[in-house]
Amino acid sequence: MDALTAPLGMVSEFPSDAQGNFSSGADEAKDYFVEKDGVRFAGTHLIIDLWGATNLDDPAHIDDVLREAAIATGATILHGHFHHFQPNGGVSGVLVLAESHVSIHTWPEKAFAALDIFVCGVCDPYKAIPLLKKGFLPERVQLGEHRRGISV
Amino acid sequence: MDALTAPLGMVSEFPSDAQGNFSSGADEAKDYFVEKDGVRFAGTHLIIDLWGATNLDDPAHIDDVLREAAIATGATILHGHFHHFQPNGGVSGVLVLAESHVSIHTWPEKAFAALDIFVCGVCDPYKAIPLLKKGFLPERVQLGEHRRGISV
Repeated sequence: MDALTAPLGMVSEFPSDAQGNFSSGADEAKDYFVEKDGVRFAGTHLIIDLWGATNLDDPAHIDDVLREAAIATGATILHGHFHHFQPNGGVSGVLVLAESHVSIHTWPEKAFAALDIFVCGVCDPYKAIPLLKKGFLPERVQLGEHRRGISV
Repeated sequence: MDALTAPLGMVSEFPSDAQGNFSSGADEAKDYFVEKDGVRFAGTHLIIDLWGATNLDDPAHIDDVLREAAIATGATILHGHFHHFQPNGGVSGVLVLAESHVSIHTWPEKAFAALDIFVCGVCDPYKAIPLLKKGFLPERVQLGEHRRGISV
């Protein structure tokens, strides 16, 4: 399928007749929850704000950093998309993972970036943080954590 | 560009020579923060867990519901991608918006879905909730809210 003519929402690098134009894989990565501290849950979702950060207007660099960061968590990348806004140079990007997703939205003129990393199973989203620090050199990192799908 | 041959992370429905294979638009949607209750911030990020939900193994339905939900917040959709996992039928999907993103990850065998909606500017993510309820008929909705990029 030509990405230029594909309807929005139907772009896929692994099209499957069985699923129309949606991508499909024979993995079971979404099929398990994890147990930690006696609590069962789907995965850990980090909310990450970077302040005083650099390299926020370069989609190729941002793609590289997020890809390395995702791999560091132990995740498998299925798809990526990065949009470059004008005139401020901001970037919005996502990686779809076999274990959920990574996103980034940047405001270069404010040296601010809002990221989130949600990985399920045994992946560790905190392992992404050193790579984000190395890639964007933030003066300050603000973190929030959600355990998604907690059932006690 | 052919989506089948595009490198991961470079798939784009609006390629621009100026930005390599990254999509580019002449909008300013990322260029402003919003002020509410005397606080300036980039936007509101909702963390949404659905329990006892239905229709979680149908990527076309999920695409439709998320698209309607995103539009209801006042956002503009730039790109979408949905991945269908086998054998459990789970779906991971994202919409990249001019005002940030929507994501979903589903575990049909647990009737559980983890969504997030991050919209900046004047968009209201809470306007998506009725459409998510209508589309997935959850028995229970669990909500978390982050104001991203708060500067006081």
